[in-house]
Order: sequence, then C-alpha cells, then structure tokens
Amino acid sequence: MSPEALGVGLIGFGTIGTGVAKVLQGNAGAIAARLGFPLRLVRIADLDTERDRGVELSGIRFDGDAEGLIDDPSVHLVVELIGGTGAARRLILRALERGKPVVTANKALLAVHGKEIFDAGRAHHADVAFEASVGGGIPILRSLREGLAANRILSVHGIINGTTNYVLTEMEKGGEPFAVVLKRAQDLGYAEADPSFDVDGIDAAHKITLLAAMAFGAELTFKEVPTEGIRAISPLDIESAAEFGYRIKLLGITKLRTGEDGERVEVRVHPTMIPADSLLAKVDGAMNAIAVHGDAVGPTLFYGAGAGELPTASAVVGDLMELAREVKRGSAGRVAPLSFLPESLEPKPIVPLGELFARCYLRFTAVDRPGVLAHITGALGEAGISIESVIQKGRGHARPDDPEGSRGAVPVVVMTHPARESAVRRALDAIDAHGDVTAPSRLVRIEEEL
Amino acid sequence: MSPEALGVGLIGFGTIGTGVAKVLQGNAGAIAARLGFPLRLVRIADLDTERDRGVELSGIRFDGDAEGLIDDPSVHLVVELIGGTGAARRLILRALERGKPVVTANKALLAVHGKEIFDAGRAHHADVAFEASVGGGIPILRSLREGLAANRILSVHGIINGTTNYVLTEMEKGGEPFAVVLKRAQDLGYAEADPSFDVDGIDAAHKITLLAAMAFGAELTFKEVPTEGIRAISPLDIESAAEFGYRIKLLGITKLRTGEDGERVEVRVHPTMIPADSLLAKVDGAMNAIAVHGDAVGPTLFYGAGAGELPTASAVVGDLMELAREVKRGSAGRVAPLSFLPESLEPKPIVPLGELFARCYLRFTAVDRPGVLAHITGALGEAGISIESVIQKGRGHARPDDPEGSRGAVPVVVMTHPARESAVRRALDAIDAHGDVTAPSRLVRIEEEL
Repeated sequence: MSPEALGVGLIGFGTIGTGVAKVLQGNAGAIAARLGFPLRLVRIADLDTERDRGVELSGIRFDGDAEGLIDDPSVHLVVELIGGTGAARRLILRALERGKPVVTANKALLAVHGKEIFDAGRAHHADVAFEASVGGGIPILRSLREGLAANRILSVHGIINGTTNYVLTEMEKGGEPFAVVLKRAQDLGYAEADPSFDVDGIDAAHKITLLAAMAFGAELTFKEVPTEGIRAISPLDIESAAEFGYRIKLLGITKLRTGEDGERVEVRVHPTMIPADSLLAKVDGAMNAIAVHGDAVGPTLFYGAGAGELPTASAVVGDLMELAREVKRGSAGRVAPLSFLPESLEPKPIVPLGELFARCYLRFTAVDRPGVLAHITGALGEAGISIESVIQKGRGHARPDDPEGSRGAVPVVVMTHPARESAVRRALDAIDAHGDVTAPSRLVRIEEEL
Repeated sequence: MSPEALGVGLIGFGTIGTGVAKVLQGNAGAIAARLGFPLRLVRIADLDTERDRGVELSGIRFDGDAEGLIDDPSVHLVVELIGGTGAARRLILRALERGKPVVTANKALLAVHGKEIFDAGRAHHADVAFEASVGGGIPILRSLREGLAANRILSVHGIINGTTNYVLTEMEKGGEPFAVVLKRAQDLGYAEADPSFDVDGIDAAHKITLLAAMAFGAELTFKEVPTEGIRAISPLDIESAAEFGYRIKLLGITKLRTGEDGERVEVRVHPTMIPADSLLAKVDGAMNAIAVHGDAVGPTLFYGAGAGELPTASAVVGDLMELAREVKRGSAGRVAPLSFLPESLEPKPIVPLGELFARCYLRFTAVDRPGVLAHITGALGEAGISIESVIQKGRGHARPDDPEGSRGAVPVVVMTHPARESAVRRALDAIDAHGDVTAPSRLVRIEEEL
C-alpha cells in the first residue's frame, strides 16, 4: 500500500467546514495511522476568504473557485458543505462526472435530488457518502448499511432535529409556551432567525426520507412525506402526556409494511407521544437519537450530537476515510455493495396517515357550557371511536399567552382506545363545526412500541 | 461481479449457531440483494448432531467433523461458535492458515489469545471479525473502527454484561439482596448455574479488553484488568446511590491517559455509581449499552441486546457479509486498513486503581457504639479525605439476609469529596482494623462524566 497522501478539497468553509479542517489537521496522525496513508486538506473554496476561522492554512490553497478545486488534480476527494440545492447540486455533479468521490452533509439536496446524484455517481464510478446528513456525528447510516445489514429493518424512530428537541425539552422543564421558548432559543443561537425549517419539521422530513431509503430501499419521496412541526404543541399537551405516562418528541418515523399488494412504507414526521420509560423519551436538549428495530437484532438505539461543528465533522471525516480507502484500493464506485445506498431504490407507496391505527391524544378547546362535552364524546362515538379517558381541564389552563385558549374556552383532553386515524379526523371535523368549539382540535399521535 | 454464492461453514450449532442459520436462511433474499451475491450455509459441525434446532438442513452437510469443514473447498468463510479457548483456538488457527476468514463471538479466546490469532490472520491474509463478541447485536466495534474513525477516542463506558445488569435492575426494583435475585435469575434461565463468569465481572473484563484494543490500539491485557463483580452490592448501596442521585451499574471502563511518559490506559470492570439522569443509567434489564466519548463527536451511546440467539446472529452475519465482500473483491486480509484491529497493538501500561481520583461511596458495617463514627471519620481525615456527607442508617438496615449485617452492627454510609483511591484504601484498612467494625468496608467508585 502506498503511503502517498490523498488530497481533500473542501467546498464551503463555514461552521462544519471549519470543523472538518480542524479534525483533518488535529487528528492527522491518528487518521494516517488508521488508513495507512495521510489525508491532506489541499484546497478550500468559499466566497468569504477573509474571515479568520482559527485554522492553520499554510500549504492550503484557499480561494473562491469551487470549479477549479474540483478540477484540480491534487484533489482526490471532494467535500461539499455549502448547503442548498442550487450550486451544491451543480458542484457535486461536476465532481462525480470527473470520477471524484464526494462527501456531503446536504440532506435537503439528497432528499430532493438524490436520485439524480446517486445515478451520476454510479455512471461515473464515484461514490457519494453522506453520513453527516442524518444525526450529525452518530454513525447511523453506516450502521444501517453494514452493522445491521443482516437484518430486515422493521422500523426507525428518530429524534433527528436538535432544535425542536431542545424547544420541547425546555417547554417541559418550565411549563412555558412554544413561542416563549423559541424566542429564547433564538436569542441563545439554538434556533435560526427563520425557524420554520426546524420547527415545522422540514429538516426532519429530509432526514427521514434518507433513513427510509437506507432502511428499506425506498425511493426518495421527500415531497410526499406527511410532515407536521411542533408549533401547535402547548404546555398542556406536555403536561397531559406526562399524566398518561408519555413524553412528546418530534419524531421522524419510517416502517415497512408488507401486504398482499406488495411493500409500502410509512414515512412521516410529527410530534409523537412515546412511553416515558423508553430510552428515546430520555433524550433531552439538542441531542439526537435514532431507534432502529431489526428482525434479528431487535431494538437498538444510537445516540449523539445531531449537529455542531466537530460532531458533524466527525462524520464527514469518517466518510472521507472510507472513500479514501476505496480510492487506494482502486475500487471506488466499482463494487456495487459498497455504494452508499441500496443499488436500486424502488418506488414504495407511502401509507396514508388515515390508515394509521393507534391510541390518539386529542385536545379540544371549547366554551365551558353544558352540552359541549356531550357534543365531543358524541361525535367520537358516532365515528366508532371508544374513549379511554376524558379530562376537562380547569380554566386555569386557558393561559393568556396561549392563542388557542381565548374566548373563555377551556381545554378538554381525550385519550382514545386504538382507532383508525381517518375516523378520528372525521370526528374532529364534526366537532370543530360546533360553535362552542373555539379553536381547531388537536391530535397528537402515539407510538407505543419503542 | 460474480453472482456466484460464497459458502459458509458453521462450527458450533448451539444457541447462536442456530440463530446464524436462521438469519442466513430467513433473510437470504435481503442479504443477497445487499451483497450482490448469495451467502450459502453449506456445512455445519457440532458434536451433537441429533437435537432438532428447528432449522431446515436439506442441502447442508452436518456432522461432527470441524477439521473437515475447514478444509472443505466449498467453505469460503468459517464461523466459530463453540466457545472456550481450547478447540476454538486450534480451529480458528487452522482456518486462518488455510487463508479462510473467520467470524467469531469468542471474547474469552480473543481477550487471552488475541495476539496469536490476529498475527496468524495477518500472516495468512485472512481476516478475523468479532463484532458479536462485544455487545451482541450492537454494531459497536464497527462504529469504533469506521464510524468514529476520525476521532481520538477519549473514553468508553459500557454495560456489557446482560446478566449483571438484569440482577442489579431487579435488586433495585424489589429492594432484594443479591443472592435472592440471582437465584431467581438462575431459575428463569437468565443466569448460569455457575454464575461467576458473569457476576464476578470476568465476561465484562474480556469485553472491555477488546474495546480498549479497538479504541486505543492497546495490546490485549485481560489478565491485568482490575475486575470486581457485583456480589458485594447490597440493597442499601442501591438505595443510598439513589439518595445521592446515582444508579449502580456494572461497567467496563477504558480511558486513554496521555502524560509526559507516554500513553497509558485505564481498563477496569467494577460496580459504578453513575448519574441517575445519564442515558447509560437508564439502560435496564438484560440490555447492553456502550457510551463512547470521542474528541470530535463528543458523547455517543450505542444500545441494544447484548446477547441472545438472534441479536448475536445479527452481528455474526453482518461480519460474514463484510468478509464475503472482501473475498469477492479479492482483497481479503491484504489491505491493512480493513483489518479488524488496529494494524499493530501497542503495549500501553494500565493505570493502577490507586491513581484514580474521584468522589467515593463508602459503606462501613460497625457496632452501634459511641466512638465508632469518630474512628471512621478520623481515619478518613488522617488519610486526607474530606467527607461530603455521612449517613448512619438505622438498625432496620441490618437485614437478617445480609451476611455483612450481623452481630448487631449497623451500616454507615459516607460520600467523600474527590479523593485519591490509594488514600481511600489506606483509610479503609485502618478502619477495618477496629474491633467494632464487623465486616470489610466497601467502596463503590463513581463516574460523573457520562
């Protein structure tokens, strides 16, 4: 084996790019020892060439020329960390066309344009590695691809967005409403000024799309993934969840369903009540965790930092090391089983939410008048939904800072026995049509098996 | 790539061997799809050829001839699951000498004879994979080797023995003493008739030896690993731990210490108080979990079933798939970076327990007489150990079923400020010399950073 170094070109010198440079430099010795040859950062491209990132740049060419970087013969491996689906897509395709393997953390790009990119990689015998795109430093994609490769995967439940897990954890600690905690998270830099990518579940939907592809070979279906964020979760929901033995987490969920008419997948993102004594429920703050259930291994869980400079860099450099080995072995991209997604992704229909069958937590906001409770329970009964318990919360719960608690209304919380979601939706529509129901009724889904 | 099947030979057709056969057969389609070629179980060797394992054996040669299996040209990959360090060692060496890669779950063999076996593998260009030897189905070795390869590993804390975790969890639930719970675990089949391998920490010591090798390239040092089991843990210790905000787990611990005179490793197994709100503390029953701290990734945790037919088979077959790829690529054992241990293990001295510096939980058993407490606190003070709190438990804690609670003695529980263990040991010796101290004083180590 040649001890000659392989050259790494880094496109995007922001937070994660800086982390990648730090890890490549700080752990250069350990990396070379493990690989048998060094990995050398030879070139960086970023539009901002002025800002000091605290990285030693001597011997590294640093300019704004991403195309030049890709074409540079001293660059054997390309890291794309600029994000977005425009330039990133173009640059990754350019690298692949030149036969250069690519490492990216760009879940949005892969969830939307993954097929084009993976096809290009196959056509040009260049791999695309993307461990950092899901769960930050947690080696979850690699575990699905290799460590658990002997299993048929049954389900994946992931806390895969740190911002929302942080907000939910803080809401639970202080009993504070979403808006208050979000504001504080923004002030502390834990949430973006425009938080919708995180709090509306879009980021998690990108990631669960990739997990469904890894776990089930399901064609990337981001646009069809039912996605619901955490804006509508109230402190009352969190408190009620605790009373029923649950905690509320924003989960990305995917499961395989095999029926008479072939395989379908559940792929969805929504706030979920999960058993308070499950390990996943105990993942707090900005941390991520992914619970994977395999037919042989049973339940597993992978936990770690889902974002941040160095944790994400850990995954990027881990991918670089694997790709570098392939380049040295001369087999990069040419040996199908090592490609980073199942060889062929197949279209697998997504199970509509209406087909879900589970206990449901329902919250109604209604004027505290005789007959309202009968209307609610009556509509549920008509839809064939049996009620496990009803709790009419006192007026104290109609907080002035809760926009849904207005007009003197009080919340009514219902836990159902297992019910079909389509029936529940029908009942909610009927209930919401009543004049004394002052805000849209809320459903929080429950996952018991974790 | 050839779609031709590779043949697997299975030596040892007990619980795990049966699981391996079931996974290879039950998931044959998924495995072939992922590999691009089938893995076929062609031959099994076990002394007991009579018992029905519920496995379809048509087309599989099954007899007692392990040597014949190894030499059979239709066997490309050998799985060793007979355990022990006698025949297993001989058979593995025979397979490697014939250039056949080996998968084993035999931690005892590797922890003791690992050097000989890995050296033989290198000499004959045949890999030895052993994911199943630590943490059952959890892909922890692979994660250390690949997913976290960009990191310098700082520490590993593992619940790596299911039997002891089950016993401790049950003791905590019911407040029952060790002997009672162990008996029940034996009746239920969760513990062996001779439980010492598990409850005295030997199994965990084998595993932490392998983890230290993976994490730090530390030469296998099983015989020198300080090892303490859970026999001396009393319900009072568990109850006191809870009062101080801890839970007691039997941990395998390894850390790297870099000093002026080079690198040393902590490698040890003992009951440990860990923060009750840490994720590791929430791992209950027979489940395993390994917390790994890397310099880039930060804290991570890997959770799953640490034993059992199918979870262990999941790891064995995952290894088989990786080795099969290597065989097909024609690079098995010839590409150093893919070998399953760091290329060269280096002797790294083990840090003596006396050097540990941490808060300590101490339990004394003394006759309830004036002056005894002064003796205890005085001896601690003389050794320079400051006391954070002293709790003298009532006589109710001197249970008739607790052998240490005899002679009318009552327990005294002390939590120290951080102290050097050598000093603590000195104090304990002085204290135990007193006539009113009726049983050996106990120390439970504390790990805060998890």
